[in-house]
Amino acid sequence: RDPAQMDPGRVSVSAVLPAGGSGERLGGATPKQFCAVQGRPLVSYAVRALERISWISDIVVVVSPENVQTMKTIIEKYCHKRVTVVKGGITRHRSIFNGLKVFAEKEFSSHLLQKPEVVIIHDAVRPFVEEDILSKVVMAAKEHGAAGAIRPLVSTVIASAADGCLDHSLERARYRASEMPQAFLFDIIYEAYQQCTNYDLDYGTECLHLALKYCKTNAKLVEGTADLWKVTYRRDLYAVESIIKDNLSQEVCVITSAKENVAQVGLLLPEFLKSQIKVEAVSISQNKNDSHLQNIFSGQCYNFVCVNDKMCAIQETQHLVDMLEKSDIPLLYPVVLI
Amino acid sequence: RDPAQMDPGRVSVSAVLPAGGSGERLGGATPKQFCAVQGRPLVSYAVRALERISWISDIVVVVSPENVQTMKTIIEKYCHKRVTVVKGGITRHRSIFNGLKVFAEKEFSSHLLQKPEVVIIHDAVRPFVEEDILSKVVMAAKEHGAAGAIRPLVSTVIASAADGCLDHSLERARYRASEMPQAFLFDIIYEAYQQCTNYDLDYGTECLHLALKYCKTNAKLVEGTADLWKVTYRRDLYAVESIIKDNLSQEVCVITSAKENVAQVGLLLPEFLKSQIKVEAVSISQNKNDSHLQNIFSGQCYNFVCVNDKMCAIQETQHLVDMLEKSDIPLLYPVVLI
Repeated sequence: RDPAQMDPGRVSVSAVLPAGGSGERLGGATPKQFCAVQGRPLVSYAVRALERISWISDIVVVVSPENVQTMKTIIEKYCHKRVTVVKGGITRHRSIFNGLKVFAEKEFSSHLLQKPEVVIIHDAVRPFVEEDILSKVVMAAKEHGAAGAIRPLVSTVIASAADGCLDHSLERARYRASEMPQAFLFDIIYEAYQQCTNYDLDYGTECLHLALKYCKTNAKLVEGTADLWKVTYRRDLYAVESIIKDNLSQEVCVITSAKENVAQVGLLLPEFLKSQIKVEAVSISQNKNDSHLQNIFSGQCYNFVCVNDKMCAIQETQHLVDMLEKSDIPLLYPVVLI
Repeated sequence: RDPAQMDPGRVSVSAVLPAGGSGERLGGATPKQFCAVQGRPLVSYAVRALERISWISDIVVVVSPENVQTMKTIIEKYCHKRVTVVKGGITRHRSIFNGLKVFAEKEFSSHLLQKPEVVIIHDAVRPFVEEDILSKVVMAAKEHGAAGAIRPLVSTVIASAADGCLDHSLERARYRASEMPQAFLFDIIYEAYQQCTNYDLDYGTECLHLALKYCKTNAKLVEGTADLWKVTYRRDLYAVESIIKDNLSQEVCVITSAKENVAQVGLLLPEFLKSQIKVEAVSISQNKNDSHLQNIFSGQCYNFVCVNDKMCAIQETQHLVDMLEKSDIPLLYPVVLI
């Protein structure tokens, strides 16, 4: 029985996304989770990565009190769904604890969310998390109580003595970097946070450690991909930007005026492009309501949008272009009108 | 007595630059040290970072046997000076050992290099090393026998048990990431390599550990800057490229036709630009020999070159432009002719 083969859709799952960091290592006034990459704040990419997964019910974003309104504006602007904004504490652990309380304590929130069986804890500054690793940590958490993504160490880790000299080097093969996402049976991680000391809340290392210390739960470690890394320095923002540009050039959105055309273009274009590119075809003409189109614009990042508009009037085409201009999709390539 | 205040120019110093890695984590056929960034291989940036420091006598670049010719071509193309290319072994430690032998064993090299008091060991894939940290590790190595740059850990480090579950998390504050550059009294690190086992040479963690294990030398740990990081994944190449572009836009090279003009432009331009930009002014007109200019072109990366050419003939200006075109300086901004 391989847990990775199991279906996370059968488990009730929600996510907590701590986004309260100050980003002091980045240098600059804006905390890194709110830094714009291709015009869109980093946290919005992380939220999108979670919300596009249908089996994640609620996404609780925890921000410092002064950023609650900023976060609410981001959610509105990019049409994020299933997101609840919660005020964080002064440390990462206190913020995560606040996020968990929304599922468990009536007093804490005006609208108590449904307590999930498994809760994912991710990071606002790791924008590229994929369904595969989320599914793996969720199923491993269901079986083991806790699970977390790991990566090989890039540098040797050393312990220093009090005099600032080398005490010893760790044998690299025996150790791993603990990354995100992590997942827990909700009752286990919530119990751990309720039990833990103020010292843990202020200086504690990470959630996996709390689950082990207070609930005797040895987390299952799941090998993650390189793109799970944590955006920490300015160079990491450069890297995120380049990766997003790379991805953009791999995606095309086709908007047509009739359902028949959608099907036709949807068949012909991928064939022509020989599967080197991801093509999404949608129809909007039948529907006078713009919300569907707006959702596509705000939820996705396509490199260009091809409007197939044989039957529509010039006026409607102009309206589409206006909407594209007003939307915040990063467009690297020109919009093509056919 | 602060070792960082001492003068590294009074110590004889050389450097070994292992560049034999296969770059398998990057994905792609070209080892990362030979990947082009702004048209120039990564290793060339690292060599340049070392060669511009006057108190480093020799730079030994160790490459795998199949890349000796590639490396020699790079040295010629970018006019690198004081560089010796040496064939590496099958592991990093064996390559570093081969690099050190050039200073100590007559049989190993056709031209034995002068044995330095202190040897720097750096990485071909850390292109942004500055004189400040090199100076600090050299002086600390002179005093302590060994020294290395360190950085705070970005991720929590964990030990896994045999069943793939968490055994324990390390307390982050007690540990550091060991980075490069490192420096050693030559006799100490050479002794360590001569003493160490084949197991160490094949699987050993790092040089600081060997110096401790075989020479009882506890390396002095020196806090480094964030840009010492090791280029490991494709995203790191993206980051390097963005940083280089950033730096380029901060540097101007002014080439004038007379010494008087150099002085004048050199005074006026920095004043006008309010010290926001680094200006280098050089004179070439008195000298029919192009080698000085060629050295500037190959050794530096300026964003544009302003040719002040009041007294020179059109023909000579054309010659300069031709040289610029033939040279491999990444030019992001137009050349300005005055």
